[in-house]
Amino acid sequence: MDPTTEMKGFRAAKVSPEMTTELKEKARKGRVWSVIATSAAKSGHPGGALSSMDIYMTLLAAADVSSDRTDCMERDRIVISHGHTSAGFYSALAAYGFFSPEEMYPNFRRTCSPFQGHVERDVPGVDWGTGNLGQGLAAGVGFALAARARGSNSKTWVVMGDGEQVKGQVSEARRIAAKEKLNNLTVLVDWNDIQISGRIEEVMPVNIPALWKADGWHVIECDGHSYSQIYDAMRCAVTHEGCYVILCRTVMGKGVSFMQNIPDYHGKAASGEDLATALRELGADMEMFEKALEARKGELPKGREVIRCVPDLETGTPVTYTKEDKKDNRGAFGKALAQVGELNYKKEGRTPIIVFDCDLAGSVKVDGFAKACPDNFIQSGIQEHATATVAGAASAAGVVSLWAAFGVFGADEVYNQQRLNDINKASVKTVLTHTGLDVGEDGMTHQCIDYVGLFRNTFGWKVIVPADPNQTDRATRWMLKEPGNVCLAMGRSVLPVVLKEDGTPFYGEGYTFNYGEIDVLRDGKDAVILSMGHFAGRAIAAHDLLAAEGISVKVLHCASPLGMDAQKLIELVGDKPLITCEDHHVNTGIGSISSMMFARAGKAVRIVNMGVTHYGCSGPGSEVMAEMKLSPADIASEVKGILN
Amino acid sequence: MDPTTEMKGFRAAKVSPEMTTELKEKARKGRVWSVIATSAAKSGHPGGALSSMDIYMTLLAAADVSSDRTDCMERDRIVISHGHTSAGFYSALAAYGFFSPEEMYPNFRRTCSPFQGHVERDVPGVDWGTGNLGQGLAAGVGFALAARARGSNSKTWVVMGDGEQVKGQVSEARRIAAKEKLNNLTVLVDWNDIQISGRIEEVMPVNIPALWKADGWHVIECDGHSYSQIYDAMRCAVTHEGCYVILCRTVMGKGVSFMQNIPDYHGKAASGEDLATALRELGADMEMFEKALEARKGELPKGREVIRCVPDLETGTPVTYTKEDKKDNRGAFGKALAQVGELNYKKEGRTPIIVFDCDLAGSVKVDGFAKACPDNFIQSGIQEHATATVAGAASAAGVVSLWAAFGVFGADEVYNQQRLNDINKASVKTVLTHTGLDVGEDGMTHQCIDYVGLFRNTFGWKVIVPADPNQTDRATRWMLKEPGNVCLAMGRSVLPVVLKEDGTPFYGEGYTFNYGEIDVLRDGKDAVILSMGHFAGRAIAAHDLLAAEGISVKVLHCASPLGMDAQKLIELVGDKPLITCEDHHVNTGIGSISSMMFARAGKAVRIVNMGVTHYGCSGPGSEVMAEMKLSPADIASEVKGILN
Repeated sequence: MDPTTEMKGFRAAKVSPEMTTELKEKARKGRVWSVIATSAAKSGHPGGALSSMDIYMTLLAAADVSSDRTDCMERDRIVISHGHTSAGFYSALAAYGFFSPEEMYPNFRRTCSPFQGHVERDVPGVDWGTGNLGQGLAAGVGFALAARARGSNSKTWVVMGDGEQVKGQVSEARRIAAKEKLNNLTVLVDWNDIQISGRIEEVMPVNIPALWKADGWHVIECDGHSYSQIYDAMRCAVTHEGCYVILCRTVMGKGVSFMQNIPDYHGKAASGEDLATALRELGADMEMFEKALEARKGELPKGREVIRCVPDLETGTPVTYTKEDKKDNRGAFGKALAQVGELNYKKEGRTPIIVFDCDLAGSVKVDGFAKACPDNFIQSGIQEHATATVAGAASAAGVVSLWAAFGVFGADEVYNQQRLNDINKASVKTVLTHTGLDVGEDGMTHQCIDYVGLFRNTFGWKVIVPADPNQTDRATRWMLKEPGNVCLAMGRSVLPVVLKEDGTPFYGEGYTFNYGEIDVLRDGKDAVILSMGHFAGRAIAAHDLLAAEGISVKVLHCASPLGMDAQKLIELVGDKPLITCEDHHVNTGIGSISSMMFARAGKAVRIVNMGVTHYGCSGPGSEVMAEMKLSPADIASEVKGILN
Repeated sequence: MDPTTEMKGFRAAKVSPEMTTELKEKARKGRVWSVIATSAAKSGHPGGALSSMDIYMTLLAAADVSSDRTDCMERDRIVISHGHTSAGFYSALAAYGFFSPEEMYPNFRRTCSPFQGHVERDVPGVDWGTGNLGQGLAAGVGFALAARARGSNSKTWVVMGDGEQVKGQVSEARRIAAKEKLNNLTVLVDWNDIQISGRIEEVMPVNIPALWKADGWHVIECDGHSYSQIYDAMRCAVTHEGCYVILCRTVMGKGVSFMQNIPDYHGKAASGEDLATALRELGADMEMFEKALEARKGELPKGREVIRCVPDLETGTPVTYTKEDKKDNRGAFGKALAQVGELNYKKEGRTPIIVFDCDLAGSVKVDGFAKACPDNFIQSGIQEHATATVAGAASAAGVVSLWAAFGVFGADEVYNQQRLNDINKASVKTVLTHTGLDVGEDGMTHQCIDYVGLFRNTFGWKVIVPADPNQTDRATRWMLKEPGNVCLAMGRSVLPVVLKEDGTPFYGEGYTFNYGEIDVLRDGKDAVILSMGHFAGRAIAAHDLLAAEGISVKVLHCASPLGMDAQKLIELVGDKPLITCEDHHVNTGIGSISSMMFARAGKAVRIVNMGVTHYGCSGPGSEVMAEMKLSPADIASEVKGILN
């Protein structure tokens, strides 16, 4: 039996000589595979792969992970934040049987292989895909918070590079961990002192221990090539209170003489004579490399399928607001969230809901949830970059994870974090308030006119922009049970309840939210208005203005701009002129989306896209929208214009 | 004469009793105007406005700024990072004659007034618009670096809030300043210990002095309501070497008894009896408020026009690459940049060019510039958020400022910073390499398929995606002299030079880059292919494949997706089928843009948009593109499909 299994779960007090021998051999093989992988791919990052190798081997020996439990909820989680050391981590996983090495090293960075250039979740044993530096710690914080909410004793381990220590998001994540007293999270830093452009001291001087200490972490330094030192440090971290970072002093390119301490090999594979030398020094030979090249032409390995579960939740009874109610969408969201939260809070067998806030709870209406479910509410401060990743990773670890923020903070500021949440097949719920021009008097820096245009650049994100408090209530309940990343967006103002012509709520009793659906709010024969979100009410107002003049318009509403059914839209519009209206950038919102649909269908109708054409001014929402020529009268006027 | 003018430029050693009296009265008035402004607007942030007031008054007295030099290059610059204290800073500017108070306080947050909810450059005396927290220090670093490059002795002052101290971007900016030894930059923090949700210690605990010290800054603490203490600290900072932060202990809501230390007044205006009390305590009355309400119905004040200058630069002689040359676009960019850099480096009267790099110089090809112009090359480490703002602000302060990065770092990671650069009417040149699927084997996290779709959400950004090294060379030279924000984007691979049918370079001798232009690379009668960037070469290859089968296609190229002339495109396409091709998200790139153009023109042609439909794999660019069905053969096949 593999002696390192004695280290599993820190059963062993110390690393025995047998274990050291075993780890040494595993690391030697891992280095061989890393060198062959990068050289066969003619690219990659051997330097960091070799310097992190001994950390990886010790970590996989001691952490509660195994090849047969990669999709299991109850186990430790490992985040490799410096994802470019992929060859190293894949090799370590291979050494521990997560897959066969022969599957990995010949297929590293091969087109359509799961073994991508940066660690990705398609590979068993990889819990979070990284590569854009600085996000890994936040992902680890998310896993640790999820474990705590599930009442699990499992731990989270984050391995980071030293170059990425200067990314601001790292400091944000550090503070969230310290504030939340995450004893179940430990960080190991591969401190080889070299980044792409040279020594850290030259590229961007940074006092790494001082930064961690300033944020309240305990710092341990150790030799990152000594299995016993790494193990002892890890054991110290897990047996003591507080957040621990282990700074592992390492040598870039460790194990290959000509790579050691040479910045050039940060991102360059060995070739020719150098490669032969490297393999010889590691106790391998060129024949193994030649065989890998041959295998590289063979069958591609398959990646694992990342599974997203449907949460086990009661979503309660929808609330119906009537025409007498004065309610804003965010209030309806907050009420539904608090209700669903309370219904499931600490109930046996239910998926925990955790909610994040960046110092805006009262405005984004998560204060009700905070009161109802205090232990599951996390105030993460004005630290949006980390929060986006924390919430994203948590959503991939057995909890429903929701973050509410102003639009510009939850989408614009963290677009790349949300993109990585998409790539990572997370299931985070991002609730944006104060979107469009409906932000009150905060002015142009706070007008989020682009979230549709931003999420449109991803492949998985769903966006919901409800018309009124009733649809918001139903969409909120729907979203909480929906796997995948969902953004629910709304403005700030109190809105009229959308009514049927008989005066009853359109999205009331009997209505079920269906993603992608287009609703016919009013029928008409002369022209069609397509609205999104709170423009439903404005479109109906325009309809009424036009009706008074004998013009009959059909009013459509679609709350799901990215899921809108093109064929259905084209059918509903027929050969009538189409006016789209919204308070989003005129070139990227639902107007642009619907125009694209008609063009692709090869169908010409007269189309006018009404939207935001310049940065807006600072004033009450209705005035700002009037200035932007988006009042109901303006919509009516465009309809008349197109009919003349 | 106003005694505080003796403080200007730190002429006075100390704040005299007369000056104190003068400052006190200015601050009293400023508090009155702030309270009236927020109450008249029924919104805003009186608490922070009042707590920062004494800092603002002291700063405007001592800094080298004045109302007659707001558009002048040679003067100090002031950044208000916590832009929500706008009422306070506007009031302070009014007290120093930058505009009349009667122009400001009745029109605060009034629709179409320049006095927006967060400080904006339309107001004289505001050098950088903020509101999204955490960006101000980076803007200040940009101003300070620009001043240094211009050989100016002027200083930069940044005032920050305490809540925003936890934003990661702040720590990044701090490190850039410390590394660059910016003695011309001083920071003042309004440390009132309260943020929206409560006390800092409760919302997100942070050791503010420790963080600044860990990054190598000197910390001074003082009473933020004592003019002499603030002045002494500022004087100490400007007369000593090193970076200084002055932590000013203040009281939220200072001067109004019921607002003091009450988190609620962070973002709530006083009304009714409270307002009367506030005004009485400040030595004013309700009559003044009533008059303001009356004036609020009157004429709107005009904002100033932000002027962007044309740089004074020699742009050298374009390089022409011929069909024998093996060159990547990034190499052509790097060569042109280095050449223009050298031509102007430290030449009298020329606008300095400064170039930023985030640890990728060799890959993004700014290493040639770094060698040719070492003093103007700034290595800012893996700190993209700060760098985007630093480079943006520098571009608004008399230098040509360029930042080169991989696409995902220069666009995706910093989208919001680039949005603020747009709002701030900056002139930053962002060069993106490794865009689209042409990133080598780095894999999906590094494939920047969305920069067109991102910048499309702004109103000012120009995007250029050149076809080959020749067009890259010309676009680079053009961009360096072009005011406004420009993004130049390119892939990683060596590209064929685009040739005319006679074998000479298309973008060679006699070609001038014109933003928005559509080039006809090949004529044809059966169908039209619209390409962007390196797809020009692929489209020509498809053209040749089709020609061999007797199919004649017109090949168009547009390097300026956001500036493309719709009418011209429609004219060039006529009634032929249109195939667009690119390695960007199929729903947000040039395909989507051109489809939208046809739809809006009410013109139906058969359109196929070819582009990226899922996250790509990790492999050589050409293989990754083939897997995405974007090879020349795939393009030819789509043409045939549409013709059948």
